[in-house]
Amino acid sequence: MSERLLSEFELIHRFFTGRDRGPGIALGVGDDCSLLAPRRGQELAVSVDTMVCGTHFFEDQPAAAVGHKALAAALSDLAAMGAEPLGALLALTLPRVDTDWLQEFAAGWGALAEQLRVPLIGGDTTRGPLAISVTVLGQVPAGAALRRTGAQPGNLVVVSGSLGGAFAGLQLEQQRRAAGPEPPAVEDSRCKRFFRPEPRLALGRTLRGRTRTAIDLSDGLLADLGHVCTASGCGARLNADDLPRDPLLHDWPSGPSLAAALSGGDDYELLFAWPARQRGELRPLAAALQLPLTVIGEFVDGGGIQVLDASGAPIPLAQRGFDHFRPD
Amino acid sequence: MSERLLSEFELIHRFFTGRDRGPGIALGVGDDCSLLAPRRGQELAVSVDTMVCGTHFFEDQPAAAVGHKALAAALSDLAAMGAEPLGALLALTLPRVDTDWLQEFAAGWGALAEQLRVPLIGGDTTRGPLAISVTVLGQVPAGAALRRTGAQPGNLVVVSGSLGGAFAGLQLEQQRRAAGPEPPAVEDSRCKRFFRPEPRLALGRTLRGRTRTAIDLSDGLLADLGHVCTASGCGARLNADDLPRDPLLHDWPSGPSLAAALSGGDDYELLFAWPARQRGELRPLAAALQLPLTVIGEFVDGGGIQVLDASGAPIPLAQRGFDHFRPD
Repeated sequence: MSERLLSEFELIHRFFTGRDRGPGIALGVGDDCSLLAPRRGQELAVSVDTMVCGTHFFEDQPAAAVGHKALAAALSDLAAMGAEPLGALLALTLPRVDTDWLQEFAAGWGALAEQLRVPLIGGDTTRGPLAISVTVLGQVPAGAALRRTGAQPGNLVVVSGSLGGAFAGLQLEQQRRAAGPEPPAVEDSRCKRFFRPEPRLALGRTLRGRTRTAIDLSDGLLADLGHVCTASGCGARLNADDLPRDPLLHDWPSGPSLAAALSGGDDYELLFAWPARQRGELRPLAAALQLPLTVIGEFVDGGGIQVLDASGAPIPLAQRGFDHFRPD
Repeated sequence: MSERLLSEFELIHRFFTGRDRGPGIALGVGDDCSLLAPRRGQELAVSVDTMVCGTHFFEDQPAAAVGHKALAAALSDLAAMGAEPLGALLALTLPRVDTDWLQEFAAGWGALAEQLRVPLIGGDTTRGPLAISVTVLGQVPAGAALRRTGAQPGNLVVVSGSLGGAFAGLQLEQQRRAAGPEPPAVEDSRCKRFFRPEPRLALGRTLRGRTRTAIDLSDGLLADLGHVCTASGCGARLNADDLPRDPLLHDWPSGPSLAAALSGGDDYELLFAWPARQRGELRPLAAALQLPLTVIGEFVDGGGIQVLDASGAPIPLAQRGFDHFRPD
C-alpha cells in the first residue's frame, strides 16, 4: 500500500494495536470511547499533558525519545498523586504520514508503556503541526491521593533523585547542535535526563498513607514548591548546599549550577512533605526504592521560599521556574 | 498586569475557574490530577478529540464557535456510548496570549458546558500552533455501553436529526470567504450545523437498554456506518430517498446533495441499530426527545454498504468519508 494512502485508522492500528489490555480496562481501542472499571473504593485520577514540536522537543529529535518523554511526563502527574496507572490515550497531530517516525515514536512509547504496564486505550490522529497530547488515567484509594495541600510548617521538604539534570542535558544537546551542521541522529547518553525522564510511580504509591503532600517537578523546583506552598498556605526554607545536584552540574560554576537545580524544568522527580520526627524512615525507604531521597529544607510559617547559603544567609533569587508564556 | 506577563497559570485560572464542580468530581482543577468518583456499578467512558487550526477551523473563525465545537465534538463520543458526562479536560496550545480570543473561546465552551452540565476538571496550556485537544469522561452502567459491535442483519439503520448540514454550512462559509476581502466577523446562522454541532447526549442515554449498537457521525455516514458494519460483521443497505437531508441541501443538485448526505462529516448525529419489530417505538421516542429519528435502511448479511435509488437499483459510490490523511 502506498504510504500516502495509509489512512488514519490503519495508521493507528498498525502501530498501536494489541497494547490496549490491562486490569481495569473494560474496553480498549476501537470504539467511540474506552471503558474503565476501576476497583471498588478507588477514585480515578486523570491528567493531560501536551508536547509541541519546537517548544518541547527538537524537530529532528529521535522520535523514540519523543514517544518516551510524552508518556513519561504525563505519567509523572499520576506519580505525584500516588495513583496507579490504568491506561493512556494518545492524541497525535502529524503534518504528514511518516512511517519511520511513527514506528520509532511507537517503539519509544511502547518500551516505557510495557515496562510500567500502561495500556494504550484510545486516542486520536489529526493532521497539523506536530504535537502530542497524552491523557493518563490511574486509580487511587478514595481519599488517599497525594495533594499539593496539607504541608505543615515544620514538615521536611524532600526530593527524589537529582535536580537540574534535564536542564543540563538540554544545554549539552544545544551545544552539540550548535557545533556541527549535521543534526545529531542519536541521543547523547549524557542527555538522558532530558530525553528519557522516569516517572516516579513506585515512590508515589509508597508515599500514600505516609504523607498527604506531593508534587512532581516539571516546571522547576522553585516553581513547583511554590505551588505546594500556595496550596498549603505556608512557606519554605531550603539549604542550597543540600540540593542533590545532578552529576552533570558538578563542573558548572556555582551560580549557574544552583540556578539549574532551583529552576531547571523537566526533571520529573517528586517533591514531598515529610514529618520531621519520621526523618529516620527516609533512608530505608530510599534503599527499598533504590532512589535517593534528600531532605533539602523545611516548610515554615508565612509565605514565600527562601534559599539559604552555608552560613545561613538568604541567597537572592533572580530566576523563577520555566513558564511557557513568560517573555524569555 | 501586562498581557505579556500573564502566566499560563493565571491564564487558566482567569478564564476557566469555578467551573470544575459536579457530581462525581472528587477534585477539580489545581492539582497534578483531577479525581473522579463514578457512582458504584458504573464504568468510566473516556475519549479524546483534537481540533487543529487550519485543519478543523478557520484561523479567524469566531473563537466562541471554536470553543463550542471542540467540546461538542468530544461529547459526541460519550453520546455514542450512551454515557453521561462527568467532566472534560482541555489541552490548549496557543501561539500567544490573546485575552480577547481566550475570553470568547471560554464563553463558547462555557455556554455549552453549562447547558449540558459538564465541569471543566483539568487541562494543560502550552505554546505552539493553535490546537485544542479535549478529553471527556463519562459514566455508564457496567455492561450497558452502546458499541459499534452487535448490529444484526435485519436490524434497521436509524439516524437522528439531518445529514449533510455541517458540510453544506462549510461550503456556504467558504463561499462567503471567497466573496469578500474581509474575513466574516460573525457566524452566519445558516452555517450553524458546521459551527455549533449538538452532541446527542439525551438520545444516547435513552438508547441504552433498547439497542446495543450506536456510533456518532463525525467522519460521514458511509465511513461511520462502515465502522459499525466492520465491527458487527455485517453489511448495510440504505435507501437514498430516505436519507433525512439537511434543509440547506434542498436547493442542491441531486448528485452533490446525495454525496453531502452520505459523506459529509461533522454532523455529530447518532446512527444506531434498531430491531425491526420495534419500529413503531421510534416515533414516540423521537417525539419525547424532540429530535427526528429516521429509518434509512437495514443491516444485511455479508459486508459492504449499498445505497439504492427509488427503483431499488444500487447507486455507484465514488466518495468515501472524510479521512485526514487521504490525499484530497
